[in-house]
Parts: sequence; structure tokens; C-alpha cells
Amino acid sequence: MVYLRRKILFSGTSLNQLQKSLRWSSSLKIRDKKVIQPERSFKYADLSVRLAAPHQLQRKPNVCQLSFGKHFTDHMLKIYYYETFGGWQAPEITPFENLVLHPAAKVLHYAIELFEGMKAYRGVDGKIRLFRPEMNMERMNNSAIRSGLPTFNGNELIQCFTRLISIDQEWVPHSTAASLYIRPTLIGIDPTLGVLPSDSALLYVILSPVGSYFKTSEVGVSLLADPQCTRAWPGGSGDSKVGSNYGPTIEMVKKALKKGYHQVLWLYGEHHEVTEVGAMNVFMVYLNDDGERELVTPPLNGLILPGVIRNSILALSREWGQYKVSERKICMEEVCRLFTENRLLEMFGSGTACIISPISNIGFMNRDIRIPTMEQSDPIYKKLLKHLTDIQYGYIPDHPWTVTID
Amino acid sequence: MVYLRRKILFSGTSLNQLQKSLRWSSSLKIRDKKVIQPERSFKYADLSVRLAAPHQLQRKPNVCQLSFGKHFTDHMLKIYYYETFGGWQAPEITPFENLVLHPAAKVLHYAIELFEGMKAYRGVDGKIRLFRPEMNMERMNNSAIRSGLPTFNGNELIQCFTRLISIDQEWVPHSTAASLYIRPTLIGIDPTLGVLPSDSALLYVILSPVGSYFKTSEVGVSLLADPQCTRAWPGGSGDSKVGSNYGPTIEMVKKALKKGYHQVLWLYGEHHEVTEVGAMNVFMVYLNDDGERELVTPPLNGLILPGVIRNSILALSREWGQYKVSERKICMEEVCRLFTENRLLEMFGSGTACIISPISNIGFMNRDIRIPTMEQSDPIYKKLLKHLTDIQYGYIPDHPWTVTID
Repeated sequence: MVYLRRKILFSGTSLNQLQKSLRWSSSLKIRDKKVIQPERSFKYADLSVRLAAPHQLQRKPNVCQLSFGKHFTDHMLKIYYYETFGGWQAPEITPFENLVLHPAAKVLHYAIELFEGMKAYRGVDGKIRLFRPEMNMERMNNSAIRSGLPTFNGNELIQCFTRLISIDQEWVPHSTAASLYIRPTLIGIDPTLGVLPSDSALLYVILSPVGSYFKTSEVGVSLLADPQCTRAWPGGSGDSKVGSNYGPTIEMVKKALKKGYHQVLWLYGEHHEVTEVGAMNVFMVYLNDDGERELVTPPLNGLILPGVIRNSILALSREWGQYKVSERKICMEEVCRLFTENRLLEMFGSGTACIISPISNIGFMNRDIRIPTMEQSDPIYKKLLKHLTDIQYGYIPDHPWTVTID
Repeated sequence: MVYLRRKILFSGTSLNQLQKSLRWSSSLKIRDKKVIQPERSFKYADLSVRLAAPHQLQRKPNVCQLSFGKHFTDHMLKIYYYETFGGWQAPEITPFENLVLHPAAKVLHYAIELFEGMKAYRGVDGKIRLFRPEMNMERMNNSAIRSGLPTFNGNELIQCFTRLISIDQEWVPHSTAASLYIRPTLIGIDPTLGVLPSDSALLYVILSPVGSYFKTSEVGVSLLADPQCTRAWPGGSGDSKVGSNYGPTIEMVKKALKKGYHQVLWLYGEHHEVTEVGAMNVFMVYLNDDGERELVTPPLNGLILPGVIRNSILALSREWGQYKVSERKICMEEVCRLFTENRLLEMFGSGTACIISPISNIGFMNRDIRIPTMEQSDPIYKKLLKHLTDIQYGYIPDHPWTVTID
């Protein structure tokens, strides 16, 4: 047990401090094509808390045995929305419990559902930090619009789940190799069949102590790039974090796992454009025509999720100015050519769950391309990973990308 | 109250008769690219029944006030699947009740979900009929494969929900303007986060007495065809009945409703190919270059759902031989040109829920194309609609497409 066992205070004062401690970093627009109405939102001020009884408290798993998304904390946050009752209801924190849904609930038939993935990190100073949560809130509201579900004020939600984390703070692993994964989820719960917008919804947040997403840190991630299946397409929902981007990919994921790969690298179109990995955005480092190292990643053209880590990698790289940085299309033909010419140096994935994961292999057209990511002497991915985790775990204190929960 | 109030017998004999009464029509392949393993299936023989207590029985709605998918019968069918417990468990009929799901259930995050839509019809002879149920079972198994969920023997499921319908037979409207909608649903319920196949699942069937899908029988359906949003794409899941085909379309459906349209006509690609309407396949009747009436519908190229009514319309039309029948691409440019040349006669949608619904208007590129479907003196859609409902409601007795529940 390496969780911090600390007495929790829930006096009005500590709550006020908690609110004040939310220091906002300058909001970075992911996309601004939609209008969000945050004035029609639930309020943190209306939050009620029903704590779990002592016998309901779960045994915490050992941090070194943590995998991804298998354990959950003692409490959860729930916020219902009923169009007929004026919209958003008061947020409530309750013991972690099963959801009771009507069998016709729209989420179960028409996939009216979306989610976010965030983490709370226990810093080396003992403080718990969030990483750029406002970006997740903006993307979550965009996903809600795409799903015909109600939007909300992201700041209010952050305050609500910050309180939840504070209540379950013993669950934030006391380790820089683990964290508390935060899963805000929004589902349409109208108990009616028919492909129509859902007039009622449930926003809930669950917390899960997690270790690595991939059990591959020493060997790198191996991906299957099969042009037969497509994840996203122009005019689709590839840039929203909706359930529908995942369900139809499972058959292919299963196929990849069966063949010994860890995940699928999704390609698009006749030129086999590299898009993303479902759970990760993709980056490539190569020697360009001028002999310089260049970091390149696919552009935000609607086919990929606008990742928070992706955005952070680009921002850090541009700030450092040590290598060229481009957002542009990457086709498999280029990947193969650069590999053959020994100019392909690194490939890696980025995401909240996997942070930065080196890619060591891509299966494409019945051959395996052995990416030398982990053979570089001074790889960019390692430098980025270190810097990001240094921010997240407070080695770099008071970074503007972090929000500290006192 | 126009429901048939009949005493229900559940003796072993009547159940045997019910099984025998399932007369199978020759199975028509929807697509045969996947391998289904029906030997790993639940069995009708293992079905248990827990009847609702008298106080749990619902008041039945008046048939003339029925809308679509708002009322549900007194019982439901549930079949769980647990990989770790040998796969499919014994089917059970229970009182209609809410589902209890773990907040991390994969269906709520990654849209691992699929469904079917079928109907039970109360014939003019008092008998209850199903329409080509084996086609829905085949499509449901294909959708399950696409979602990484377990397949099953369709005949076993038909027998199980036939028993359910028999128990709730008073709910089958005694009217040829209504029917009992059957909604088999299969969801992934693994309580773990992470984009991976679900090792546990729930197949359930709920029943809903329904009237018309659209409240537009006199004016026809008005559709918005906006090239901005895409429903399906090559390599996607447009030909599987998975929830993911619907969730991301809701924003557009909302937009269409707001503008006064009933539904969206989904287009694909730069040539604005007509695909389908989400809840309907699409047909067009026009005067071809030889001056003949020709019925045309988009082909099964992966972008549209292989509809049972679509298949039946094509089969009937080819059998009749009274007009030319084609499955081929239709672009909006052609629709506009035929309309301008007064050669566009009819457009209509087909589906289990809507049967055959005439289309009277298409909004495209900021203009409305007034389709003269309902102005024809001898429209094909009406002939097809009459013939199909004559089969479904037993005016044409013992048709090979029907399965009678004695």
C-alpha cells in the first residue's frame, strides 16, 4: 500500500481553498466552430455529497499491480439532465454504484454517448495535480454537440470532480509510475426507441487508479496497419470523443491482438494516410531532405482526435526549437520509403492514458516494419515524456499547464 | 382497447405446437463474407420464465394513440454471455425491468452495441405473424462480429422471443395500422475501461406496440440532404446495424428537425451519392431513357444497411416484372436533372419501422425539390406497400415470408 493515508477535511473553508486553488491556464482552443452555451449549466455550488458507509469502502489494489481501468474508487459524481424539468439537475457525489437504465435508453441502441480521459497525478511534493483540464472540457462540450446532448460550463464540472478526487484522494497512487484516471461520461438516457435527440442525459464521472496503458514499455508498441478498415472519414465524428469511434473498430482490434499486435494504426484513403491509433495520436521523427531531425504528426483535419498530449508535444517542441516541427499528412508509402533509406528515426503514440509510448513495429501489407524508435541514442520521445511527466508530477513546480488540488 | 383479450396457455403442448409452427422460409443471404458459429449458442430448450405479478402489469395504450417506441410490454427476454463461464448462459424471460449496469460497462463508453428491428403482426385471421425473421438474425450475427461480440444460432433466438411474444400476445395490436415492434439488442457489458473486446455481453429483447414511424402518411416525408455530414464510408460499419451508425448523426437530425424536415437523407462523396435515411433505405421511380418506369435503389456496397424490406421490394418487383428494376448508384445531380425534366415520378423509403413511406420533399443546396410521389395516379410505392402489408397481416395467407405463431 503506497497510497497516501491522509485525514480528509470537508469543512466549508477547505472547500473554498480548493476552489481558489484552481488556477486556470490560458485556454487553448481545440476548435471553435461550435457555439457552447455554458450559461445553461449545472453549478458546483449545488453539489451534494453522500459518502459511502465504512462497509462500502473498497480495498485498494497494490500500485505495482495496477493495470488500466479495472479498479474504481469508492465514490462517483452524477449529474442528470431532464429537458422537461428545466435541464441540468444538481450534481451529486454518491458511493460508487451500478447505473439503473431503462432497456430502451438511447445510449444502449443509438450510441448517444461520449467521454473524456484525464488524470490526477500525485506529485513528488505530495500535491495532486490535473493537467490542462480545460482542454478536455472544451472537447467534451464539442462531443456533446455532435451527439445532440446538452453542453455545460467546463469550469463547474472541473470543480465538481475535483471535489470527488478530494474525497477519494487516498486512491491517487503515491507513485510517479501511476495516476488516478478520470473518466467523465455523458450518455443519452431517454427511454424511447427512434433515432431522435435524447431529451434526458446523465453525466457521470468515475475514477480509476491506473498503471501503464500498454505493458510494453521495454519493447515498444506493435501496431497493425490494415487498409481494409477505416476509423474515421471527412464529415464523420473522428474528431469527437464519442463511443461510435470505438465500437466498430473492435473487430479489427481483435484481429490485431490475435496476430500478436497491441493495437491498430488506422489508415485513411487510397494513399494509406496515417491517422491515429484509437487510444493515441501518432508522431514520427525522421531525417528530412536537409538532413535535420523533423517531428511530424497528422493535421487536425477531422480524421483524428485533437489530443491534449498531442497539443502539448507540439507546443513544447516549438518552444524548444531544437528540431523542425510539422503538422501534415503522412502516408504509409513515405513511412516505408524513409525506413528503407534509414531516415526513419522514431515513431510514438501520445494520449492521456498512454502518455507517450514508443512504437517499435508496424505490420503493413504482410510485412513488419521494425521502427528503430528505441535504438536511438538521444530520442525525442524520451525527452518529451520526461518533460511532460516532470510537469505532471510536480518536478517542475507551478507549471501553467497544471491545476493543483490543495 | 382493441387488443385481443385471449386466455394464454403455457402447457408443454402449446409450447411444442409453437415450436412446430415456426415454418422456415428459404434463408436469403444478406451477405456471407463472415463465418458465424451457431453451434456456440444459447438454447431455447434452456429458457426459463418468470412471469410478472398482477400488480406489475402495465395498462395498454389505445391503439389509435400509438406512436413509435414509447410503450413497452410486461415482459422481456435476457440472455447473458460470460466468456469466463463458458459463454452463453440460459435464456430467461422476466418482467420488464430496468437494466443494472456497471458505470464502466463497455457499451456506455465504446458503443459496443447493436440491435435489430422486427415486428409481430396481428393478422386479419387473428394469427400473429413474423416477417422473414431469419434475415434479421443473420444481420444481427454480422453486426455482432463487427462489434467483437459473440454470435448465436438465430433459430434459437427466434424461438425464445416467439415465446416472449406469446406471453405478451395481448400487446400485439388488433389492428392492421399497428404492430408489435421487436427490438433485439446486444451490448458489451465488461466493467473495464480500455478499447478492447468485451468478454461479457447481454442480449435482450423488448417489445413495443407501435403505430406509424412518421406522422406524415398524408403529406409524405420531407428530407434534408446536407453534404456536410457523412453517415458511412468504405471500410466503415454502414452495413451493420450498430449503434455507432446513429449517435454521430443526431446533431444533423436535430438540425433537420429544426428546419422543418423529418429526417436526413445521407449523401456520400463529392458526387453526392444518395445512400440511405438512417431509419430507411431509399428508392426512386423515374422514366428512363427508353420512356419506361424504372425502380432504382443504391447498391449494397457497404455504405447502406441491407434492409429486409429493401430486399423484399426488389424480390417482389423482379417477380412482377412490370417495371425495370436496378441496384445502382444515384447521385443528387441525377435526382435534380430528372426532376427538372419531369421524369422523376416517385421516391420512397423502406424499413421495418416505417414499412414504405413516400418522400415528398428533399432539401438540397438551399432549395427544396418537391418530389411528386403522392401525385402519381398509379404509384409503385402504394402497390408495394399494399402487397407487403397484405402478406404481413395475413390477407395473403401462408406466404413463405411469414412465420406464424399459433
